Amino acid sequence: MSDSNSEAAAAGAGRGRRGRGAGGGADARRAKRRGAKAVKCRFFERKIPYFEPLSEEALALIENNADTVLEEVGIDFRDDAEALELWKAAGADIDGERVRFPRGLCRSLCQTIPRQFTQHARNPERSVEIGGRNTVFAPVYGPPFIRDLEGGRRYATIEDFQNFVKLAYMAPAMHHSGGTVCEPVDVAVNKRHLDMVYTHLRYSDMPFMGSVTAPERAEDSVALAKIVFGDDFVENNTVMINLINANSPMTFDDTMLGALKVYARHNQACIVTPFILSGAMAPVTSVGVMTQTLAEALAGLAFSQVVRPGAPVVFGSFASSISMQSGAPTFGTPEPAMVLYGMGQLARRLGVPFRSGGSLCGSKLPDAQAAHESSQTLLPTILGGVNFVLHSAGWLEGGLVSSYEKFIIDIDQLGMMQVMAGGYDLSENGQAMDAIREVGPGSHFLGCAHTQANFESAFYRSSIADNNSFEQWESEGAKDSYQRASGLCKTMLDSYEAPAIDPAIDEALIAFIEQKKASMPDAFS
Amino acid sequence: MSDSNSEAAAAGAGRGRRGRGAGGGADARRAKRRGAKAVKCRFFERKIPYFEPLSEEALALIENNADTVLEEVGIDFRDDAEALELWKAAGADIDGERVRFPRGLCRSLCQTIPRQFTQHARNPERSVEIGGRNTVFAPVYGPPFIRDLEGGRRYATIEDFQNFVKLAYMAPAMHHSGGTVCEPVDVAVNKRHLDMVYTHLRYSDMPFMGSVTAPERAEDSVALAKIVFGDDFVENNTVMINLINANSPMTFDDTMLGALKVYARHNQACIVTPFILSGAMAPVTSVGVMTQTLAEALAGLAFSQVVRPGAPVVFGSFASSISMQSGAPTFGTPEPAMVLYGMGQLARRLGVPFRSGGSLCGSKLPDAQAAHESSQTLLPTILGGVNFVLHSAGWLEGGLVSSYEKFIIDIDQLGMMQVMAGGYDLSENGQAMDAIREVGPGSHFLGCAHTQANFESAFYRSSIADNNSFEQWESEGAKDSYQRASGLCKTMLDSYEAPAIDPAIDEALIAFIEQKKASMPDAFS
Repeated sequence: MSDSNSEAAAAGAGRGRRGRGAGGGADARRAKRRGAKAVKCRFFERKIPYFEPLSEEALALIENNADTVLEEVGIDFRDDAEALELWKAAGADIDGERVRFPRGLCRSLCQTIPRQFTQHARNPERSVEIGGRNTVFAPVYGPPFIRDLEGGRRYATIEDFQNFVKLAYMAPAMHHSGGTVCEPVDVAVNKRHLDMVYTHLRYSDMPFMGSVTAPERAEDSVALAKIVFGDDFVENNTVMINLINANSPMTFDDTMLGALKVYARHNQACIVTPFILSGAMAPVTSVGVMTQTLAEALAGLAFSQVVRPGAPVVFGSFASSISMQSGAPTFGTPEPAMVLYGMGQLARRLGVPFRSGGSLCGSKLPDAQAAHESSQTLLPTILGGVNFVLHSAGWLEGGLVSSYEKFIIDIDQLGMMQVMAGGYDLSENGQAMDAIREVGPGSHFLGCAHTQANFESAFYRSSIADNNSFEQWESEGAKDSYQRASGLCKTMLDSYEAPAIDPAIDEALIAFIEQKKASMPDAFS
Repeated sequence: MSDSNSEAAAAGAGRGRRGRGAGGGADARRAKRRGAKAVKCRFFERKIPYFEPLSEEALALIENNADTVLEEVGIDFRDDAEALELWKAAGADIDGERVRFPRGLCRSLCQTIPRQFTQHARNPERSVEIGGRNTVFAPVYGPPFIRDLEGGRRYATIEDFQNFVKLAYMAPAMHHSGGTVCEPVDVAVNKRHLDMVYTHLRYSDMPFMGSVTAPERAEDSVALAKIVFGDDFVENNTVMINLINANSPMTFDDTMLGALKVYARHNQACIVTPFILSGAMAPVTSVGVMTQTLAEALAGLAFSQVVRPGAPVVFGSFASSISMQSGAPTFGTPEPAMVLYGMGQLARRLGVPFRSGGSLCGSKLPDAQAAHESSQTLLPTILGGVNFVLHSAGWLEGGLVSSYEKFIIDIDQLGMMQVMAGGYDLSENGQAMDAIREVGPGSHFLGCAHTQANFESAFYRSSIADNNSFEQWESEGAKDSYQRASGLCKTMLDSYEAPAIDPAIDEALIAFIEQKKASMPDAFS
């Protein structure tokens, strides 16, 4: 190559220099071994600012419009007479199942929402702080299918569910065990919540999510948690967080309201999330989506405080667009990112914890489409200040598939986000003036004292990227990242060791589940 | 699927609803046809704020440290006696080839740099504004190899060079023809610059970059430009922008200085870029990298103003880390992104146009690794306020490879970034209150008047993402994005039509090149 100004040529020069410096060969291999044991953090607190593209004027406009929606259009609370009674007592106008809210009522009721709360884990060292400047990563939620490289796409089973819980437990940058990491369709619909909650409690020691598909399943989730944490502890602390989606537009149904009431009354946390596919459940414009999301969330959050003032609750926003060709949801495009940033600003103004984003994609495979869409969702998730990140790993095909390899690729990105949120080191060591003085013009930094002292921790080390030479990569089979992730996933699962649990507690959990399962016939719809 | 709260289930519901709404089937297909002809913008002006994670205190610290580097350590200007004379006259201290700068000298000299300038294109409708709140996308620069799905990795030829120029010309969100889109190694080293400049002038009508590999090749580039634009126009306007990399650490060599002097004296723009692989050419810490980059850039930018006050010049920053295992450059990790944001802030404080970022990656294939690394560079590129984005499409394998399919995948992302930078529509139509009132709780927005009026332009439409159902995707061959990009690339190249050029000008360009080529024997190193 002749072009001495080529940046490729300069990269090549860097590669060459490497061999001459200290810290090569054996040192690098040692570092690799150490690096493999990344320290798991409970969660992380951001040291970087938020990205806030909505102006003060725009924020006020959207808040005013949301109040207009609440006042003039209203929200339906369906098939739940108690909810309507509670709203009537709180000062709302009831017209059939339509609830309309005097301006400011919902916002006023939201003042009792904790800005930040602790979700306790079975292992106290894994408890998380939700809200404030903290971020908690949780895995994918909801897919009925799974995919892996060798087996392709198929219905998920309880064994897959266990595997995803194990992977989340082991992933260095995963803070939470999540909920329905996939739908174990081999277990009866009316009983699978028992196996799911048990799996979280037995195969992990991290915080988890309870069942929301029926009020009685929420009660079962609470009962199982009480076996582990004790009755009083559960009533006075938060040990579960639970996903309550609005039926957008502007509707909450009895299933969700029922679960929300159960959890709020037991002091357990709920995430109230308007689930918006823009163009279907909300207008096609970003400002319209934000207005409607804010209105729906305000109504749902306020309802939790009507049920139990002070109950922990999280402001959720899930917004994607739809494809004009297929009607399917699309991800990673500019519009949902801009909605996410704006909703983060609106949630912080309301003073409540915020859930949005994740590693979302519409791709069928963990390919470049999946990665672009995921990165273009995840980086906004971090810059936008999301506190609780559901779907942060494993989500594929618009949430229809939990992917093993995608999970492995995603958790590497989560590690990067965690480092990025740590901001800059402005210490003398960070400034590195001694290094610049020591090396001077025309030399290199590989062997200098500052590099030696900082090399191992200076750069984020990807667990999945291949940064070897082309020749070495080729000699190792010329694998793409999908193939490498497949191998890494197997290695992880092979090395899984379950966290300890008191055998008496385990027996009590199993006894409860067996009794419950025996009490009713299987249902599969 | 039983879990009515599943977000996957909700996505499925959206899919189902689609069929019932208006605007489906035939409408969608029509929209697709229209959407395929995306309007090409000259460049774009951001409506969103910058992401600025460096505090005022940190900015002042880095500026102060950079001044200390310039004053105490200094910068080598090698094998260029004229440069040393110019620096002496400007007030610097000369010690052999080492130049030390009184505090504030470089910054003071930089005051004559234009904050924004026009780079004129052969087609005036393609001229770009570099600086201010504008962003210009240019393709990959420098790789000696190319890769495509069918042919694999091989040395690049002038035919490949022509193909990448054609693709850039056709790409809706590509604003610039770039420079060495790949190294045409089948043409003699001492003659290929002639073919490269000719290709930009003949196969595109967009702005382009000149040769910097030797001062006489820079003169040839200017001579060719004068045939197209006229002598006076070139001397009084900027029609080329040229990549001048520092030999970091803290060194400029005679090749680069020679080219810089030629271009500055002809009023042509240069990008002065400290090329940093952190740990090799600079310290391993982000603040250290920023300090050294600022010092080197200040010296190079100031030198351009010593040569010709007011010459257009761009502050460049290229910073990646290196792999501890292989010594190879790594991309898409948190550290270079944090450096990019900080350098953007420092460049804006200096009041000069800024170049950094791109769609960088270390991957050998356009897979998930390539996409994550590219997105994690490109989104910071936009949020960090880069004015001139080299390597915005096609870069693979640390800049050793220009990839056809990666180019196709990247230009889709560029389109998204352009839309994102447009910010929010706060108009009445954007607020969509009429739509929310019209639809109300429990219905859907697919058929409402607002959706009908806005549907086609509301969402960014990816050219490469597959958002069809799983079944349809499978029936179409279950292609990943690499395979889809391959097909799209062929379609684009097949439909290429060259822009018109005055035959007399074309003849004059060819005559100049033939005369030059005949005047010297081929050299291949």
